[in-house]
This record gives sequence, C-alpha cells and structure tokens, in this order.
Amino acid sequence: MERPQEACDIFSAAGRVLARDLAVESDVPSFDRSTVDGYAVRAKDTFGATESAPALFQVTGEVRMGQLAEGSIQAGQAFLMPTGGMLPDGADAVVMVEYTEAFGEGTVAVVKDVAPGENVIRRGEDLLEGEVLLQQGRRLNAHDVGALAALGTAAVPVFRQPLVSVISTGNEIVAPGVEPGPGQVRDINGPALVAAVSMSGCRARFAGVYNDDFDMLLEACRHEIGAGASAVILSGGSSVGPADLTPKVFDALGKPGVVIHGLALRPGKPTILGLAGGTPVFGLPGHPASALVVFEIVIKPLLRALGGESPGAVAVPAQKQPSVKAVLERNLSSGPGREEHVRVRLVTRDGKLFARPVLGKSGLISTLVRADGLVRIPEESGGFEAGEVVDVYLWGS
Amino acid sequence: MERPQEACDIFSAAGRVLARDLAVESDVPSFDRSTVDGYAVRAKDTFGATESAPALFQVTGEVRMGQLAEGSIQAGQAFLMPTGGMLPDGADAVVMVEYTEAFGEGTVAVVKDVAPGENVIRRGEDLLEGEVLLQQGRRLNAHDVGALAALGTAAVPVFRQPLVSVISTGNEIVAPGVEPGPGQVRDINGPALVAAVSMSGCRARFAGVYNDDFDMLLEACRHEIGAGASAVILSGGSSVGPADLTPKVFDALGKPGVVIHGLALRPGKPTILGLAGGTPVFGLPGHPASALVVFEIVIKPLLRALGGESPGAVAVPAQKQPSVKAVLERNLSSGPGREEHVRVRLVTRDGKLFARPVLGKSGLISTLVRADGLVRIPEESGGFEAGEVVDVYLWGS
Repeated sequence: MERPQEACDIFSAAGRVLARDLAVESDVPSFDRSTVDGYAVRAKDTFGATESAPALFQVTGEVRMGQLAEGSIQAGQAFLMPTGGMLPDGADAVVMVEYTEAFGEGTVAVVKDVAPGENVIRRGEDLLEGEVLLQQGRRLNAHDVGALAALGTAAVPVFRQPLVSVISTGNEIVAPGVEPGPGQVRDINGPALVAAVSMSGCRARFAGVYNDDFDMLLEACRHEIGAGASAVILSGGSSVGPADLTPKVFDALGKPGVVIHGLALRPGKPTILGLAGGTPVFGLPGHPASALVVFEIVIKPLLRALGGESPGAVAVPAQKQPSVKAVLERNLSSGPGREEHVRVRLVTRDGKLFARPVLGKSGLISTLVRADGLVRIPEESGGFEAGEVVDVYLWGS
Repeated sequence: MERPQEACDIFSAAGRVLARDLAVESDVPSFDRSTVDGYAVRAKDTFGATESAPALFQVTGEVRMGQLAEGSIQAGQAFLMPTGGMLPDGADAVVMVEYTEAFGEGTVAVVKDVAPGENVIRRGEDLLEGEVLLQQGRRLNAHDVGALAALGTAAVPVFRQPLVSVISTGNEIVAPGVEPGPGQVRDINGPALVAAVSMSGCRARFAGVYNDDFDMLLEACRHEIGAGASAVILSGGSSVGPADLTPKVFDALGKPGVVIHGLALRPGKPTILGLAGGTPVFGLPGHPASALVVFEIVIKPLLRALGGESPGAVAVPAQKQPSVKAVLERNLSSGPGREEHVRVRLVTRDGKLFARPVLGKSGLISTLVRADGLVRIPEESGGFEAGEVVDVYLWGS
C-alpha cells in the first residue's frame, strides 16, 4: 500500500508521523563552538598551569556571539569567548572564565590547564552529514521538532493522517441531536469513538446511525470507503446472533471480508477484524464501555500502524505502555482462556493510590465516567487479590 | 480571573476542559429497560420454577427495540423482550431466554425463577435527574464524551484554550527559515516549545526570535500580552549574569514581575516564574534540552491549570503520572539539595526494558532525539545504582 504523504509546517509537526528517514544535510555544529564563557587558547600553552604557577596569555581578540571569529591565535595568545561562540583559528580549547584572572593590561592568567578539545564542541561532533537523525515511522514529539528545527527543516514530510469513519448501528439508537422516543436511546458510541479516534492521531468522520438493516449498512460502509475512508469502525451488531449483521456486511463489502471474529478478550469477545479490499474494517460491541475498551486495547494500536507509525521507530513496545501503580481494593478473579481488562477508578487515600474496580450492571453510563483506566489480567492468571499492587493503564496514555 | 468559555461541538470535545458542572437533566434510563434477551414477567409468577417444575406463561405480546411497550402484563403472562427493550407495564423482571423453553402454541416454560428487578435497569438507576455527572475542570476523555452524548449534550461548555506566546532570545539565534551565518545557530526552542505547548492542550503562537536587547524584548512581551496571550514563554537569558535580561524584562512588564527566580531543579535552575499583571510569564533556559525538561516538569502543569483543569476533577495527582519501569544501565548520582531529572533512552534487550542515561556534552541536538523520557532523582536521594528498576516518565504522557 502506498501511504499518502504531505508536507507539514514544523510548527504543527508534533504528533505527526515522519514519512521518510531524515538525514543530516550538513555537519552540526558547522563550526567549532565553545560550551562555556572563557578564553580560547591553544591547549598546550596551558599545560602545567596551577594557582601557584599560572600561565599568562595576551588577550589579542574577542569573539562575539553570532559573529565570525576574526583573526587567529598564536602561541601565548587568547581570545575572550562567549558560550556558543565560534572558536578562532589556531585555538583548540577554551578555559572557563572561573579559572582565569585578569592580570594587568591585556593579560590574563590561567590557573588550570585544559586538554585539547576541552569546553569545545567540534564541527560535526553533534551530527555528521549523511547520518539518519529520525527514522521513517517516528511519531514526532517536541524534542524531535527541536532537532528538525536545528537542521533547518521548514516543511516536514509526514504521512497523511488516516481518515477513520465511525458508524453506529442499532434499531433503538437515535443520532446525536435527535430526541429519543419511547424505548429509544441516544447514540453514545458515535461521539465516543470519534473522540477516541481523534485522540489516536487520526482524523475521524461520523457517518451516522443506521438501523440493523443489511442493505443500508452495506451501502453506508461502501459510501465511506468510496469517500476516502482509510478504515471503517462499525459498532453494534458484532455478535454471532442472526440479528448481528456486521460479519455479513463485512463479507459482502470486499475480499477477504471478516478475518477474525471473536477475540479471547473480556470485554471484547464479539470483536470483528476484517479487510474489504485494502481497507481495514472493524466491528465493535454495541455496549459503549466494551467498545471503548476494545478500542483502547485492539483498535488504537492498529490505527497507529495504519498511520505509518513503525514499532522500530517508537520508544516503548506496545506491551509496555505507561501505567500508574495502585493498590487493588477488591479481589479480581478471571476465568482461564482469555485476557481480561477490568475498568477501575483511581482513589487517593493518605497520599496512596488505590484502584477500585467499577462494578454495576453492564451498560450503565455512570460507569463510563467513573472508570479512570484498566487493569489487565493476563490469560494465564487467575486474577489479583485485594491489597496487591497492580498496573493501571490510564485512558489515552 | 474570569476564564473565557465557549461552546464546543461534542464531536470535537475530547481533550477540552469542562467549564461548568454538568448535571443530569432527566433520569437515565428514561424507562425500565431489559439487559437481556428473554421474557418480561411478574417476578412472583416465577417463584419456585425449576427444570423439573417449570412455570408456564402465556406469551401475550412482544416488545420491539426502539418502540413503546404496548399493552400490559397480567398474572401468568409474558412478553418477548430484546436486550435494551422497554419493559411493559406490570412486568418487574426479565427471564433470560436461556432459562425458557417454547412449549406449544403461545406458551413458554420458565425453568429458573427471577427476583424482582432481575435483568432490568430501572428508570433513573444509572443517572438521576440533578446529579452532577462531570465536574467543572475535568479534561474530557472519550468515555466522558460518550456520557455527554448519552445525555443529549450537543454543545459542550468548555474553557477556551489558553493562547501561549513563545519568544526565543539570543544574539546568535536565527529564526526558522533563515540561513545561519558564521557563528550563528538556528532557533530550536521556538518550534520545540510551540510543539510542547500544543501537546499540552493550549494554542501556541510563535512570536519570533529576538536579540538580547532589553527594549526589544520588553516590547515583544508587551505586544504578545496586548494581542491576547494568556501566558508568555521566553527562552534564553534567564540566568543571573548581566547579559541575562529576562528577569529585568519581566520586572518592567508589570507587577509583581519576577516571583520565583531559580528552582532547586537540575536541569532548570535558571527558571523564572513571573506575573505581569494577571498574565503568567515564564523564563526558560536557552539550552534546548533543559528548556524542554523544565517545560515538562514545571510549565506543563501550570499551563494545564491555566486552561482551567482542576486537580479535583482529574484521575491522577500530578505526582503520580504514568511511567514505565526499566532497569537502569549505569549508576546515576545526584547532589543534595535539588531534584534531578535525567534524560534516558529506552532500550529493549531480551524482552526487557533498560534505561540508558543520555550522556554527552550539553547542548547536543543528537541527544534531543535519543532521549525517550526522564528518570527523577528526588531531592533527598543520592541517586540510583545500575541494575535498579526505575520509573521512566515518557515525553508527553
């Protein structure tokens, strides 16, 4: 698949994914540079200098910041140097001003010797021409942007952000802005998944709410893909019952259709991963909390890859995401054969962080805002006991 | 300070900060709702039902999803119910379809009794009218957006994102797009801090690069504040030398001027926190790596508060940010009397995560992209030894 690219202004490049390796075009620094305020000298002229036997230098020049160093240094001569200034010809080290003493007219005493190269960054020492600074597939952070700025990159080659279409299905669901009639409920998954998609570095498009109708759902998915969607997320109707249309829609949409139906995950068993032609299509449970957990655990890493993010160019492997430690408040047991993700609320007591499992009947909206993150119970584990310290993965981190 | 607010479409509300408490306007669910597929009944009619002695019911109706339940249930009667459907009058529980058996014309056998309220979410059980669902000062995540959607909130009241102006200073610094002359270097802090500000939920404005000139810097800061900046970040010139103008500029800018000059932090000692009238002004070190570390540790939490984020409304206290565990590759020692933040690179070996301190002369651009995050050495600690497991705080998490 050819992934579309675009040029991005360096001031908006944070969070975008680099579309090609960026190599250094010329040495950095482009001149030998002082790292301290002091005096540029020939190092060998300072050898043996001490407090009691200082070496004396004639101050024959001064380097100003941002200016070419004029003149050159001969034996026994020194130039006054600012931090960041360009070393004059002939000098190979800088004596920090703290180790010098003005000593009459145009003379400075050096009381500590310096080695060649001391307090100097040599031309190319930081970055050598041709070296790859940032790899294709790297999601740029503020530090990376700083490095690109240092190299004079004004327009950064990045991958276009995938456009992800979000479709909600369910006969009882009404679209945002519509007043629910008796027996109807407002669409939660549409806005929530649009938010989750946007926070994952993709562009999100809400394609609307559809009844559980095969032809209409198929047409809606076709329309989104035709309109340029890089992926389609359909929530609701992903189970295996006769009324669950998502697998049939995906199979009719293009080859190979449904690739995986059912994950060894709780919540999230009825998740569907498919491909319609080259376009990934995802079927999520209709239950909002389940849909959002599956998004976090399964879909987000897939969308990041779809956006061109490369595991080799990222700091932390997917299995080692940042978490906070918290003391579990209740036992959490888990059946064998599947990985379980339990939503927890974080509570601070006596300066200590506790994880309180979010219980309550499935489908409650109130539990959505009460859960701060997830505790993962691995497939091979039977669970955790109250009092154990567990890792809590916060939403969106 | 009156913090400006605006209405935000629910589809773009993720990451924004709620400007007022949001209360529930009407009960959720607005009707008694089934949580399973099955039969709505009067619970007492099932009492004592078992496999060997099932209770028989006349199926006198069927509830369809998204429709008002028509008719009512009398003793010995049952309605076929879909998950999410509205309970008919007279029913107070739902028997799961798994515990029933079709038993001739219009009759169903129930083989397990249900308690009143079983498999039902009662009206208002999830959210009661008047209850505060989300607090003012909460930064909205995808789950919160889902809850707002459930309540029918189309326009979300949020605080305007602070506009933060970024100014770079230094005689040797040239603006992005300008080719550096001899002895000059490109501005790194401007683009990097703009990126860091944007990733912290604020709008960023780059105000340009200025020479170390008191009048020009003062005028630049005045102009930014006059143009509506909620905060100004000035990098470079924050030390205590005579050439370091930031403290003088901040003092001239408005009362009280410099509030804190110098933090017990390494890097970051020469950080300045000030207030010009009501506008926070921040002076950061000119050294890019230091400026970015100080931003992460000190400025980011301040900008989040400036944006209206309230500690009481966020999940995790500032001192407990998400981190990854890694094995330290070298000893890290730290002097007493200040908190130290050491940049580390994360390296995976044999599936294990290692933290490799980023060494090298200060000011190297290459170290910017080699550091994945920070290890914090508390003020009272002497450091860590190689082989210890440490917390690594990733950029931007």
